[in-house]
Amino acid sequence: MRLSRYFLPVLKETPADAQIASHRLMLRAGMIRQQAAGIYSWLPLGYRVLRRIEQIVHEEQQRAGHIPLLMPTLQPADLWQESGRYNAYGPEMLRIRDRHDRDILYGPTNEEMITDIFRSHVSSYKDLPLTLYHIQWKFRDEVRPRFGVMRGREFLMKDGYNFDLTREDALHAYNRHLVSYLRTYERMGLQAIPMRAESGPIGGDDTHEFLVLADTGESGVFYDSEITDLRFGDRDIDYDSVEQCQGVLEEFTSRYARTDDTHDEAVFQEQVPEARRREARGIEVGQIFYFGTKYSEPMGATVATQGGERVPVHMGSHGIGVSRLVGALIEANHDENGIIWPEGVTPFHCGIVNLKQGDAAADGACEDLYKALRAKGLDPLYDDREERAGAKFATMDLIGLPWRITVGPRGLKNGVVELTCRRTGESEEMTPEAAVARVAEIYAGI
Amino acid sequence: MRLSRYFLPVLKETPADAQIASHRLMLRAGMIRQQAAGIYSWLPLGYRVLRRIEQIVHEEQQRAGHIPLLMPTLQPADLWQESGRYNAYGPEMLRIRDRHDRDILYGPTNEEMITDIFRSHVSSYKDLPLTLYHIQWKFRDEVRPRFGVMRGREFLMKDGYNFDLTREDALHAYNRHLVSYLRTYERMGLQAIPMRAESGPIGGDDTHEFLVLADTGESGVFYDSEITDLRFGDRDIDYDSVEQCQGVLEEFTSRYARTDDTHDEAVFQEQVPEARRREARGIEVGQIFYFGTKYSEPMGATVATQGGERVPVHMGSHGIGVSRLVGALIEANHDENGIIWPEGVTPFHCGIVNLKQGDAAADGACEDLYKALRAKGLDPLYDDREERAGAKFATMDLIGLPWRITVGPRGLKNGVVELTCRRTGESEEMTPEAAVARVAEIYAGI
Repeated sequence: MRLSRYFLPVLKETPADAQIASHRLMLRAGMIRQQAAGIYSWLPLGYRVLRRIEQIVHEEQQRAGHIPLLMPTLQPADLWQESGRYNAYGPEMLRIRDRHDRDILYGPTNEEMITDIFRSHVSSYKDLPLTLYHIQWKFRDEVRPRFGVMRGREFLMKDGYNFDLTREDALHAYNRHLVSYLRTYERMGLQAIPMRAESGPIGGDDTHEFLVLADTGESGVFYDSEITDLRFGDRDIDYDSVEQCQGVLEEFTSRYARTDDTHDEAVFQEQVPEARRREARGIEVGQIFYFGTKYSEPMGATVATQGGERVPVHMGSHGIGVSRLVGALIEANHDENGIIWPEGVTPFHCGIVNLKQGDAAADGACEDLYKALRAKGLDPLYDDREERAGAKFATMDLIGLPWRITVGPRGLKNGVVELTCRRTGESEEMTPEAAVARVAEIYAGI
Repeated sequence: MRLSRYFLPVLKETPADAQIASHRLMLRAGMIRQQAAGIYSWLPLGYRVLRRIEQIVHEEQQRAGHIPLLMPTLQPADLWQESGRYNAYGPEMLRIRDRHDRDILYGPTNEEMITDIFRSHVSSYKDLPLTLYHIQWKFRDEVRPRFGVMRGREFLMKDGYNFDLTREDALHAYNRHLVSYLRTYERMGLQAIPMRAESGPIGGDDTHEFLVLADTGESGVFYDSEITDLRFGDRDIDYDSVEQCQGVLEEFTSRYARTDDTHDEAVFQEQVPEARRREARGIEVGQIFYFGTKYSEPMGATVATQGGERVPVHMGSHGIGVSRLVGALIEANHDENGIIWPEGVTPFHCGIVNLKQGDAAADGACEDLYKALRAKGLDPLYDDREERAGAKFATMDLIGLPWRITVGPRGLKNGVVELTCRRTGESEEMTPEAAVARVAEIYAGI
């Protein structure tokens, strides 16, 4: 993309009402615009990051064998009356009356609707196991929306639902989700730690939240410091293997790690040597639940077993906060100059800064770089505006592309451009061809 | 995808309340489920088609230089009060009150919000021309939703908005959209004819609707039969060229083609020789508008000209009915056995039917085919269920994959499988390798 033809409305001033770094930086970098309390437009740069995250979530869900579909944003109230949650849910649910005075609502989650889909179409144990998921906009009418997209009202979430014949099968689905989530977050460049949590309005006994450590997190967290050394890495997991998934779960959840909802100081002190005890803040970016037959029983989602008996299916639900992740990623990756995107989610793979727009050599070299990078399947952002070098650097630092190639007449006389890493600030001179090769190599495995 | 692990709830019975072919077939093929009047879940097969269409729309919009962003589904009422449309819009607008008693609405279209984004961030002629678009769910509270996704209440639409300094520039944007739409529909395997139309609640003088001819269409259309011979084809259009875009517009709109809203029988008879006059039905799948300063003036979306004067920008809006297109595609592509997907939008590239599941040779050949097709970047659907051949064929015909490879022990003894074209019904025997190569070749340019 050529910046002269893009829409990147960066702000010079720091917005006064934004309290945390991610909210400030998303406004300053022209990623979002607030349209109403807790309701945002995703401007082109923000939309790109959102799509990258969505893409990673889709790929990892499908790698685990989960099947995508798409449920609507609006739901009929009667499904929620069946489950008993219509009255229980409280004022966070946006209740709507349509022109025919029918009660509908903007879905805050989808357990009822997916159970309805399941019961209408599945009736035999032969069709199990089954995990369906979607990535769709949801609405929760937060009483005090704040922190930008971190606690918005309209938000994008991946929510998946497993249907299994037995409790054991459903617990495998639970473990499989835990494994796939670890992999998903790491691909984004995030460490998200699974912690014992409370189930809240979804219900169920088994639940883990995934938390990203950050000073601005809303949850207090208590954990064994050894847990931050764990890496999922590039393991070749067979998602059908009960043993492998169980093994990963045990590896990542056997150490003490709880949110303030479930924290037990006595257990903490007993299990964790003092030197390894940590108390910090965390941002919740996902949660998995096993809740058995909580919805399948009242809603009649049953299957015939091999013996012909009808039994309610065992279910769980599993969420990833897609739009919230954009904020969480920035909280975990920024400095005083702006955002520092991990390569996995960056909106553009690298920036090209032309130090002297209008200079024939510089313009030509930039064009060649732009085309060479695109020919390698990369997406560069070329700052081709007539602007001072300082302003161009400041914009690049603010929007946080991990790599920048700087092109100027002086370097070109020696046949070199400069490749700069946003995170370390280190620069290296090299030929344009070498810069293209290096950037391509960086992204080869991502 | 292996069918044994997929979720494809096909129906044996024809749903009684579905009046048109696309609605019946989408229900029977397990593509959608109605959740409330005019509100549908997109089951896995339907979701795949929806995503294919969305992908083509994105690619063609970006080829034309338009920039994607994403506005929220909910909007504050005050923006619509500014434009004067809040009271004018009528009961199709879903009006909502949140927990703090603020008036919001589920967006039926986005002229106000995009104008608000523009005026907040753009103030100079130097930032023009600019075209922003998004693909987002919208809601119109139709009094009688019907015909499945063709006239639903919650629907997916691409809507784009151009901002230009002058009327001439904005007319170029209009023409550019017309060109990109022709290309978009043709990639999907659809002929959509641009017809003079009425502007309705969007406003403006210049507007064309794109109509797909189909007996079940809601609009009456009148046209010169020569128009159906026009093909956009694989032209290499420079979207920045005023002349080229104008040329395409003239080629595709100079012949008589109007909907019943704008039809003028006298002009029709005068301009079109009797033998070429056609009266038919059509499905509207898109519309483009030029409306000048209708929104920019009341909402104060102005830019400074080169001379320093502030002028309101010239705008237009341009929509493609993404979810409706799924229905329109089926109306235009089906027979008595089911859907016939054009290659551009098919949910899977080809089907593999194993005639004798459990037979070692057949199972092995199917696995090899499945892997070979995937290695070529194709997405096959392998029917690996224990089912009669007749049931497998019926399912494949119903869901409409354009190509099917049939594998059975008898053919394998002679080293052949059968490749069948869904549209013509013609079959040809060939080696499995040749079948893979043929299917790959078919999709090479798509």
